[in-house]
Amino acid sequence: MLGNFTYHNPTKLYFGKDAIRNLKSALAPYGKRVLLVYGGGSIKKNGIYDRVISILHEAGKEVYEDAGVMPNPTTDKLAEGIARARAHGAEFILAVGGGSVCDYAKALAASVYATCDPWEEYFVNQNEPTCKTLPVGCVLTMVGTGSEMNGGSVITNPAIKQKNAHNFKADLFPRFAILDPTYTYTLPYEQMVAGIFDIFSHVCEQYFSGEDDNTSDYLMEGLLRSLIHSSRIAVKDPLDYEARSNIMWTATWALNTLVSRGKATDWMVHMFGHAVSAYTNATHGMTLAAISLPYYRHILPYGVQKFKRFAVNVFDVDAAGKSDEEVAREGLAALEEWMRTLGVAMDIASLGATEDMIEGMADATFINEGGYKILSRDEVVAILRESLLAK
Amino acid sequence: MLGNFTYHNPTKLYFGKDAIRNLKSALAPYGKRVLLVYGGGSIKKNGIYDRVISILHEAGKEVYEDAGVMPNPTTDKLAEGIARARAHGAEFILAVGGGSVCDYAKALAASVYATCDPWEEYFVNQNEPTCKTLPVGCVLTMVGTGSEMNGGSVITNPAIKQKNAHNFKADLFPRFAILDPTYTYTLPYEQMVAGIFDIFSHVCEQYFSGEDDNTSDYLMEGLLRSLIHSSRIAVKDPLDYEARSNIMWTATWALNTLVSRGKATDWMVHMFGHAVSAYTNATHGMTLAAISLPYYRHILPYGVQKFKRFAVNVFDVDAAGKSDEEVAREGLAALEEWMRTLGVAMDIASLGATEDMIEGMADATFINEGGYKILSRDEVVAILRESLLAK
Repeated sequence: MLGNFTYHNPTKLYFGKDAIRNLKSALAPYGKRVLLVYGGGSIKKNGIYDRVISILHEAGKEVYEDAGVMPNPTTDKLAEGIARARAHGAEFILAVGGGSVCDYAKALAASVYATCDPWEEYFVNQNEPTCKTLPVGCVLTMVGTGSEMNGGSVITNPAIKQKNAHNFKADLFPRFAILDPTYTYTLPYEQMVAGIFDIFSHVCEQYFSGEDDNTSDYLMEGLLRSLIHSSRIAVKDPLDYEARSNIMWTATWALNTLVSRGKATDWMVHMFGHAVSAYTNATHGMTLAAISLPYYRHILPYGVQKFKRFAVNVFDVDAAGKSDEEVAREGLAALEEWMRTLGVAMDIASLGATEDMIEGMADATFINEGGYKILSRDEVVAILRESLLAK
Repeated sequence: MLGNFTYHNPTKLYFGKDAIRNLKSALAPYGKRVLLVYGGGSIKKNGIYDRVISILHEAGKEVYEDAGVMPNPTTDKLAEGIARARAHGAEFILAVGGGSVCDYAKALAASVYATCDPWEEYFVNQNEPTCKTLPVGCVLTMVGTGSEMNGGSVITNPAIKQKNAHNFKADLFPRFAILDPTYTYTLPYEQMVAGIFDIFSHVCEQYFSGEDDNTSDYLMEGLLRSLIHSSRIAVKDPLDYEARSNIMWTATWALNTLVSRGKATDWMVHMFGHAVSAYTNATHGMTLAAISLPYYRHILPYGVQKFKRFAVNVFDVDAAGKSDEEVAREGLAALEEWMRTLGVAMDIASLGATEDMIEGMADATFINEGGYKILSRDEVVAILRESLLAK
C-alpha cells in the first residue's frame, strides 16, 4: 500500500436468489416518483419487468418509464432521459439491466438538475456535479462491468464519434444494487463468456502495473482464481448456481475501487479494445480477449517478475528449474488455454477487423502510461497486427 | 456464494502517511461539539493527541474529552461516558486509539440518547438502537481488531464478569476512519505480533467453515498470503512502511464483513481465547495463538479438504504424492513455523494458565456450531490441556 488513498463505497448490495424481494424496503427512504430506466425490453420477456413493476406499485410509487437505453448510451438518449425525468419530477432513478443501463442512470442522475451541458461538463471536462443529483438504484441483469457498485459511467457522443467515461464520486454510486445470479441465466453463451473475460480483464488491468508488493495484488489473485475456477464450471453448466453466483460477486469486486487502492494501474487493453470496437462494433469483452495475449506477450519482458508471479499464483505454474521468463510465458500459455476453453475471441479478424483498419485503430488507441511499457505508435500497430493475424 | 446476504459498508477510509490531514474535511458535515474519546494517554506521548486537538480547533469545533478507555471497556466506563456526552451535548464522537476505544465509541454513540440500559438492550438482548444515535469517526493507532470499518463493539460487565459483543448495523459503523500506518510504529513488538495473529485468526475463523467453494475463500487466501508475507518483513524491520501498511489494510478487510458474505463461519478459537483471557488477563491475540494449533489439529480430520486447500493455497505446500491428510498436516506445520518466527504464544501455560483453571475455562468456553466439528465438553477440555502442555 505504498500510495496514499481514500476508499469509500456506500452501495448496499442485496445478493442471492430472489434478492428482488428486498426492493420494496430498499426504496422506502426515497421519493414517490420513480423513473424506471431499462434497455431493449428483454426484461419484459424474462418476467423481471413485471416483478419490478408489481413491487413498485406495492411500495406506493408512481412509475414513469425511460426505456430503450442502448448498449452504448448516447448523448441524444441522455437528453431524452433528462426531459422525461424533468417532466415527471422524478425523485429516484431505478436502473434495471446491465452495465450500460446502470452507466446511463448515473449520467442521468447527475444531469436532471444540471444547467450545464452534461457531455461537456462531466465527460469532457471531467468535473463533478455541483447541482442537486438524484439517487440511483440498480437491479442487475448482466454481469461484467461492475457498474452496480462504482461511479463509472460511459456515454457516447455520436456526432463526434467519441465515447467518454467519467467516474462519479460516491454520492452517485448506486445507493443499492440487487444482484440475483439467476437473472443472468437467460444470457446467451457468448455474452456470458464475454462478461467473464471483461471481469478477468478488469482485474488484469489493475494487476499488471507497479513494482510494489501490495495487498491488492493478493486480493486480485484471489479474484482471478475464483473467476477461472467458476468459469470452467459455468461453461459446462451455465445453470450451476454456485459458479454463476461466484462470477457475479467477482465482477462486483473486480471494479468497485477496492483492488486499485494504493497502486498503479494500466488499462491499456481497454484502450485497444475501445479502438477495435469503434471500427468493428464487436462486443466489448471479445475485443479485450482478442487483444490481451498479443499485448501481454509484448510487454512481458518489461514486467517479468509480475508475469512470473501471475503464472505461479493464478495458474499454478511450477517454477522449478525454469528461468523467470520461461515461467512468465507459461503463465500466458495457461491463460491462452483457459481462453480457448471459454471460447472467447482470440484475434480481431474474427471480430471483423481488416488490415486496412489497422492504422485508423492505432490512431484511435489512447496510450496510457501506467503499464510496464509505454507503447510507441509502432508498437500499437504491431500489437494490433499480431492480433489480426493470430490463430 | 451459496447463501443469500446483504453487504453494506459505508465507512470512508483515509489511508496513508499523514492521512490525518483529511480529518478537518472529514469532520465538516458534523456538529460543532465533539467528544474526543481515547485510552490511557499514549497518544499524548507520541504527538497524535496534539495534532488531533490542533485540527479540531482549526475546524472550529468545541472539544470535550472522555479519556481513560481501558483495554476491555466496562459498563461503568460507558455510564461515565454517557453522562459526559449528555452534559456537553456531544454531536460527534471522535475515537482516537485502537479497537477498544473504537468499540467503546460505538457503544457510547448508541447509548447517549437511549432510555434503556445499553448493556441489557444491546449486549444481552442484541437489539438495535431505536433512539437517535451519534455519528462516530476514528483515528486508528493500533492494528488488528478491524473495529474501524465494522459495527462490532465488545463491552465488559465487571459486576457479573461477562464480556459481550454486539454487531451494530451500518448506521453505527464509523463514518470515517483515518489509517496512518506510521501511527502503529510506536507499538511494542509484542503488541505488533499479537495484532498480526489477531488478523490471521479473524480470517481463519471465517475460512475454516463450510463445504462450498466461495469467492470469499479465495479472497481470504489472498489476505492470509499478504499478511504472512508482510509479517515476515515486519518482524525483521518493524519500520518497513510497505509491510506495516499492508498489514494495516489486511486487518481492515479481514473483519469488515466482506469475507464472511455467503458462507458459514466458525469463531471457535475466539471462544477459547475469551475463556483463557478471563482467567489469565493475557493479550487477546496471544490467547488466539496459543489455542489455534491444538484446536485446528483436533478438528483437521473433520475438514481435511479445507485444511489441505489451506496448506496448498496459503503456505504453498507441495501436494504431490501425499495423502490429503498429510498435506493438511503439513499446512499446520507451516503455520507453526510462521508462528514461531513471529514469536507469539504457543501454549496457554506461558500466558499464566494452570491445570487447576482448565475446568473453569472449559465452562467459560461458549461452543459455536459453525466449524467442522461441534465440540463436546471433553474435547474442549482436551484442547485446553493440549495447549497447556504444548511446547
